[in-house]
Amino acid sequence: MVGKNSSLRDLLRLPQGPVDLTSFDSGAAPGYPGKGKDDAPARSEMIGEKLSELQERLYANGRENPDFPRVLVILQGMDTSGKGGVIRHAIGMVDPQGIDLKAFKQPTEEERKHHFLWRIKKALPGPGMIGIFDRSQYEDVLVVRVEDLVPQEEWEKRYDQINKFEADLAGSGVKIIKCFLHVGHEEQKGRLLERLQNPEKYWKYNPGDVDARKKWGDYREAYEVLLEQCNTDEAPWYVVPADRKWYRNWAVAQLLLETLEEMDLSWPAADFDVAKEIERVNKS
Amino acid sequence: MVGKNSSLRDLLRLPQGPVDLTSFDSGAAPGYPGKGKDDAPARSEMIGEKLSELQERLYANGRENPDFPRVLVILQGMDTSGKGGVIRHAIGMVDPQGIDLKAFKQPTEEERKHHFLWRIKKALPGPGMIGIFDRSQYEDVLVVRVEDLVPQEEWEKRYDQINKFEADLAGSGVKIIKCFLHVGHEEQKGRLLERLQNPEKYWKYNPGDVDARKKWGDYREAYEVLLEQCNTDEAPWYVVPADRKWYRNWAVAQLLLETLEEMDLSWPAADFDVAKEIERVNKS
Repeated sequence: MVGKNSSLRDLLRLPQGPVDLTSFDSGAAPGYPGKGKDDAPARSEMIGEKLSELQERLYANGRENPDFPRVLVILQGMDTSGKGGVIRHAIGMVDPQGIDLKAFKQPTEEERKHHFLWRIKKALPGPGMIGIFDRSQYEDVLVVRVEDLVPQEEWEKRYDQINKFEADLAGSGVKIIKCFLHVGHEEQKGRLLERLQNPEKYWKYNPGDVDARKKWGDYREAYEVLLEQCNTDEAPWYVVPADRKWYRNWAVAQLLLETLEEMDLSWPAADFDVAKEIERVNKS
Repeated sequence: MVGKNSSLRDLLRLPQGPVDLTSFDSGAAPGYPGKGKDDAPARSEMIGEKLSELQERLYANGRENPDFPRVLVILQGMDTSGKGGVIRHAIGMVDPQGIDLKAFKQPTEEERKHHFLWRIKKALPGPGMIGIFDRSQYEDVLVVRVEDLVPQEEWEKRYDQINKFEADLAGSGVKIIKCFLHVGHEEQKGRLLERLQNPEKYWKYNPGDVDARKKWGDYREAYEVLLEQCNTDEAPWYVVPADRKWYRNWAVAQLLLETLEEMDLSWPAADFDVAKEIERVNKS
């Protein structure tokens, strides 16, 4: 819990209805219980310890029971919003053995031959795992829409298809955490310049990022539509202010923690005779 | 570097020739530069920071150049030797985006239809990645040999096949770090009992572990043979004493660090006109 009576999930949960992203402050830090940047590493470490234990419980249960619930974190956001940073700093606190990480790039030739959800279904986390999607099915109503990559009559069906897909997933026990990392227009400019001013960051820069930036309004609109259309009770969207990296990383870790806490994970019981096994080991 | 004039790789590198594992002290801590358990977390953190930067350089280069060298850490050892602990504590210090982790279990029906290296080749790390094998091709001359799962005339050819395979890998730029986590017979007993005395660890216990323990001598012999037969210059074995968990985790991290340091990784150059891009961003 963040405060006494509310969770971060309550605070960041996108309300139902039309979405106007300009009304969300990308520089805010809602629900952060500390002072700010300086105490964020300590706060994150506290979360990390709890995450670490709960992840192990989840993993242990998944090994005993292949139908045990699993977790899927979906990360979306404009360039430089920090999907990679969240994975490095927040998800990186968890045992890599319990993380199933998938980055969706431009679809391959083979992927293009299939339904857009085909590659998504193939990448779903296994039992006891925490799946992380760096981009996701939402690219198929984003870049595809803005860049006119498939006909409108095709992509406009996808919102419903995604909702149905996610409802089925949730029904089969997948806890879905969809995070929109909300970076501001000015902040993005600063981050792109940073990449150009530091030779250690050149590799992160892609001239195509400026082309996309020039279509900021179109992308924002495409995001607003998908946020509105695909904001269901089974798979709600969280809008995570992302101008402050320390807040963004803390917030995604906290959303994951609250989800794991709610699962009320216990350690699986022994499926063998403990006393007998102690005797066998002692004799060996 | 561990000491002034030697690396941990020099210290732990298995010498050529016949191998007698009883002559290796599984409780030793060769090359550890600190005092012991108490300062191991701080020492590991220092390694973690260096690993983190070098891994990012490796990753950046791999993105620019698909033929760029990659790294493969192979973890082998008896039950409870701590393959999972190494991944959690040592490999867990690295950005999960740069880690390609593969745990080899009993082969599936499909895998069994193919050559034993088929599933290994499919799991090799991509450009810029650090691959981690939790068990590996060596299971096919270990459990297979001890439990008589395939005819001798088949498994006895595999040592040469593995050497050829690894030489080819090394030739194509894969830096191979093969770690044998060497746990003692008494220490293993203690660890199995620990799993049986703590309900939080029941899930890690498998009655089959005692069956394997009863064949300790056979497994040790199978390890001695593979360590001797597959100890090449391109892909040498390191024998990592594993009775002290803090040492084991530190040592594997240090072996990885020395390998990355030797690669002399620089940041990739910009493949765009930096001044022009700064102008484009500023105007956007």
